[in-house]
Amino acid sequence: MLRMSTLFVRTLRDDPADAELPSHRLLVRAGYIRRAAPGIYSWLPLGYRVLRKVEQVVRSEMDAIGAQEVHFPALLPREPYEASHRWTEYGDGIFRLKDRKGGDYLLGPTHEEMFTLLVKDLYSSYKDLPLFLYQIQTKYRDEARPRAGILRGREFVMKDSYSFDVSDDDFMRSYQAHRDAYVRIFDRLGLDYVIVKAMSGAMGGSASEEFLAVAENGEDTYVRSPGGYSANVEAVRVRVPDPVPYDDAPAAHVEDTPDTPTIETLVAVANERLPRDDRPWAAGDTLKNVVVMLKHPDGRREPLVVGVPGDRDVDTKRLQAHVEPAEVEPFAEEHFARYPGLVKGYIGPQALGERSATGVRYLVDPRVVAGTRWVTGANEPGRHVFDLVAGRDFTPDGTVEAAEVVAGDPAPDGSGPLELARGIEMGHIFQLGRRFADALGLKVLDENGKQVTVTMGSYGVGVSRAVAAVVENSHDELGIVWPREIAPADVHLVATGKDPTILETAGRLASGLEQAGVEVLFDDRPKVSPGVKFADAELIGVPTIVVVGRNLADGVVEIRDRATGSREDVPVGEAVAHLTGLVKG
Amino acid sequence: MLRMSTLFVRTLRDDPADAELPSHRLLVRAGYIRRAAPGIYSWLPLGYRVLRKVEQVVRSEMDAIGAQEVHFPALLPREPYEASHRWTEYGDGIFRLKDRKGGDYLLGPTHEEMFTLLVKDLYSSYKDLPLFLYQIQTKYRDEARPRAGILRGREFVMKDSYSFDVSDDDFMRSYQAHRDAYVRIFDRLGLDYVIVKAMSGAMGGSASEEFLAVAENGEDTYVRSPGGYSANVEAVRVRVPDPVPYDDAPAAHVEDTPDTPTIETLVAVANERLPRDDRPWAAGDTLKNVVVMLKHPDGRREPLVVGVPGDRDVDTKRLQAHVEPAEVEPFAEEHFARYPGLVKGYIGPQALGERSATGVRYLVDPRVVAGTRWVTGANEPGRHVFDLVAGRDFTPDGTVEAAEVVAGDPAPDGSGPLELARGIEMGHIFQLGRRFADALGLKVLDENGKQVTVTMGSYGVGVSRAVAAVVENSHDELGIVWPREIAPADVHLVATGKDPTILETAGRLASGLEQAGVEVLFDDRPKVSPGVKFADAELIGVPTIVVVGRNLADGVVEIRDRATGSREDVPVGEAVAHLTGLVKG
Repeated sequence: MLRMSTLFVRTLRDDPADAELPSHRLLVRAGYIRRAAPGIYSWLPLGYRVLRKVEQVVRSEMDAIGAQEVHFPALLPREPYEASHRWTEYGDGIFRLKDRKGGDYLLGPTHEEMFTLLVKDLYSSYKDLPLFLYQIQTKYRDEARPRAGILRGREFVMKDSYSFDVSDDDFMRSYQAHRDAYVRIFDRLGLDYVIVKAMSGAMGGSASEEFLAVAENGEDTYVRSPGGYSANVEAVRVRVPDPVPYDDAPAAHVEDTPDTPTIETLVAVANERLPRDDRPWAAGDTLKNVVVMLKHPDGRREPLVVGVPGDRDVDTKRLQAHVEPAEVEPFAEEHFARYPGLVKGYIGPQALGERSATGVRYLVDPRVVAGTRWVTGANEPGRHVFDLVAGRDFTPDGTVEAAEVVAGDPAPDGSGPLELARGIEMGHIFQLGRRFADALGLKVLDENGKQVTVTMGSYGVGVSRAVAAVVENSHDELGIVWPREIAPADVHLVATGKDPTILETAGRLASGLEQAGVEVLFDDRPKVSPGVKFADAELIGVPTIVVVGRNLADGVVEIRDRATGSREDVPVGEAVAHLTGLVKG
Repeated sequence: MLRMSTLFVRTLRDDPADAELPSHRLLVRAGYIRRAAPGIYSWLPLGYRVLRKVEQVVRSEMDAIGAQEVHFPALLPREPYEASHRWTEYGDGIFRLKDRKGGDYLLGPTHEEMFTLLVKDLYSSYKDLPLFLYQIQTKYRDEARPRAGILRGREFVMKDSYSFDVSDDDFMRSYQAHRDAYVRIFDRLGLDYVIVKAMSGAMGGSASEEFLAVAENGEDTYVRSPGGYSANVEAVRVRVPDPVPYDDAPAAHVEDTPDTPTIETLVAVANERLPRDDRPWAAGDTLKNVVVMLKHPDGRREPLVVGVPGDRDVDTKRLQAHVEPAEVEPFAEEHFARYPGLVKGYIGPQALGERSATGVRYLVDPRVVAGTRWVTGANEPGRHVFDLVAGRDFTPDGTVEAAEVVAGDPAPDGSGPLELARGIEMGHIFQLGRRFADALGLKVLDENGKQVTVTMGSYGVGVSRAVAAVVENSHDELGIVWPREIAPADVHLVATGKDPTILETAGRLASGLEQAGVEVLFDDRPKVSPGVKFADAELIGVPTIVVVGRNLADGVVEIRDRATGSREDVPVGEAVAHLTGLVKG
């Protein structure tokens, strides 16, 4: 039994100064977590109870699919991460350190390498597979902008699991088993979530899906169509139009377009000076060339120009996802000085490409198919080129999915117009393929006695993040509303008034409930007003609140549902049975 | 149910090359742990089960004394450790790192500072105390010589708790509550242990005790007397003799003692050239002056001479414990060159002391009381001084407990001669006093409305170390012998032979046991010989082994006790009831 009189908690009336999101505000105010350093939090008793309950939900569902729990160190040697190239690829994103002998270590962000090596160490035959291993462990990422409390911390708890199969077909069953387990986990956590196609990022691998908690404050944007397509916006593939015949297209011609450094000014000048016959020029007729600097993990910097239809911006997160592990940086004034061939505001395809005079790499939106005609920069200040035809007048180095996705864009599979929403990444399931097994030499003998490289999957759940995501999903203006499965207690029992028989009865009820296996948070504080007690109970968010107070004179206690606010009186003698039924379902 | 056919384990026949201790050898061979880096281990499924059971024992006993579980980060900011001076005092003993912004962090070795700040943050009145907080958490120390597997690792799991009291009297109750809880914990773990007085080390504080698992391979040496005195050898206080009158003592005289750089050669030469009337010279008549270099946490180095009776050596660990946080380093040849006043092999008290010509600090064994007469170095090659009287001819800068403790030495409390034994430090309870509360400003209002500084205790249990210590305590030549409370399973069920009814019956028995709440490790491997299965069972060390094999023809199964080797046949129909009784006690 938890007693408010001794529980290590102090609820706060005021929001912490650095907290923007409801989950961050409420978890700090209700005494679940406390900031220790930027992106690094301590768990107070109530918070740690919730965290362990989330762990238990995850653990039981992993055990149910036959996954075996292990535990790796967080402090890891450099060598395996060197072999997979991730020591470098992670860039500034991980914590690195040296021991007293100068040996290089990192604090593990994920453990693909270590699991691969362990399985290599122990197993050698197809008969040993499939194998699922998992751990629930503290992980580290040196986030550039730790924010939002435990939603995006630098030290956090994750469940990571890994599957090992002898063939791709077997792997698909392992992947599906994890996917099904994730559905059960997030259902039990009471999260409102979606499953979307995802980029695989620095993990490598061929395909992956994300489980996103639907949350207007989420960092991730995803899309969905009426016909069932859904994807993280970074993973959306543009529907590629057919090539356009261009035999009749006029030759490209350069025109004076003074003072048109933006698409808006360009369209206006074009319509004024060079009006079209059929309709006015529009932003979509222009090809916008955006230059950025890529910083590679080895520190090398390289300019990149991205060409997108002028009616949409470059989405930096989408671009970032496609150039990983390089980082996208702005292209600064001093960079323009170093590349005189790039005329700011008037960059055009004819000066771009690895085989052009500038040598600057040029990637375009997949919509820029052969035969499309564009108004775009002429590589001279105040001049643009018209009727520049892709495939005739220029050939980019390739395409890139970097243009922003806009509500109403067609789903790539033809399943209708896309709508956009935001979410919090809660789970991620990756088809790793043979990237790590190849890098670290994990092979087994197959049925024919032949060495084959193992096919792997990796699967993550943000365990500490789930605590915050649930609060984002489930709170009101008064406080948190925990789903029963992970609430810090089953019942919050409030004794009000100064009558000693009330406190006595409440104490007996609390003990009776504990004996019945109901976890009780008992507000037994003698000198605290009922108002403060109710406010604390609503803030803390235990799903059922029981009030023992004035009604006791009528032989009843009041049972309140935290989520709906509904109240009912129950005879005090029936309270244990009634509450046990409520709690145990 | 764990099935050997799918369990992620491979037992090894050979000892790992780097393993010296039984616990290290057996835990690796039986598939409990696996080395990931020096002093850093991964836990395989069997090992992680045992670790979690140890955690659960510790957790339940901490909960029972009203301690509340919290969880701090392992990655900690520098500032609080700067305030307590431990950032520097830890020297090379901790892992330090920088984040991407250049901020200084450490990986927490213990969390006194963080707990102190958290309580300061939340509490302000004597009414809030006493308070016990604890965590079970991964900790880090950059050991100079990580060894012995998980007995002395660089990443390890500890339970650390902290008590907060308004007065020293209250504190003594909190200390006693923890001490009692520790007794219950180590009893439940089945450890053979002793409780000894201990140094408080870098923790500061006034007094402390250690719980040592008795183990001949232990790193710690402790003493005990027939009358009940017991202490870690580092904490032993010498019984100080009374001063000796020296009015009649002859004047000191320097003598030629060529080629006597050691005590042995000196005694021989003295007996030959300057024989005593009463008895021969003995090593105990000489005063040996040992010079070392102290390295202070700030990097400063300072020579120190320690004077001990010549019949005993300086015990570096004892000396180390008394000069902390400084580190004891050897005094090298080049150091002698820098201190010409120190004549190697002939160092004497008259050239020593902070006010002497050399200025080198000089501390002596507490037995060197006023009036004692010594043969010792004359600070010239080949010469010694005789009848040098302490308090008359030299006055050291102080005393230090650095002489080795020898079996038969008197206990300081007069409780008889000491015997020496070795152990593994499993728990440590510290009276911190107000060191951390002072450094970080943790005060509360007392009953009179006056600000008082809080009195703290800190209490550690080596949770991962306990797994190894139990094995050191409890194994035989065949393998591990787990105590029931923390065994990876209750019953190891071995099915032998090729008869399909045997495997079927064994499977039904395994299910029946699981339904009765008995944890089963089921060796269901179809193509493995009985010999290999028995060897694995003995190596793995589950306390009860059940064999379903040929005896099934007679309607019985065999039940073996792993510890005693005793066997009995039980009718198969009674096996579940019999085993349930055995397991549940």
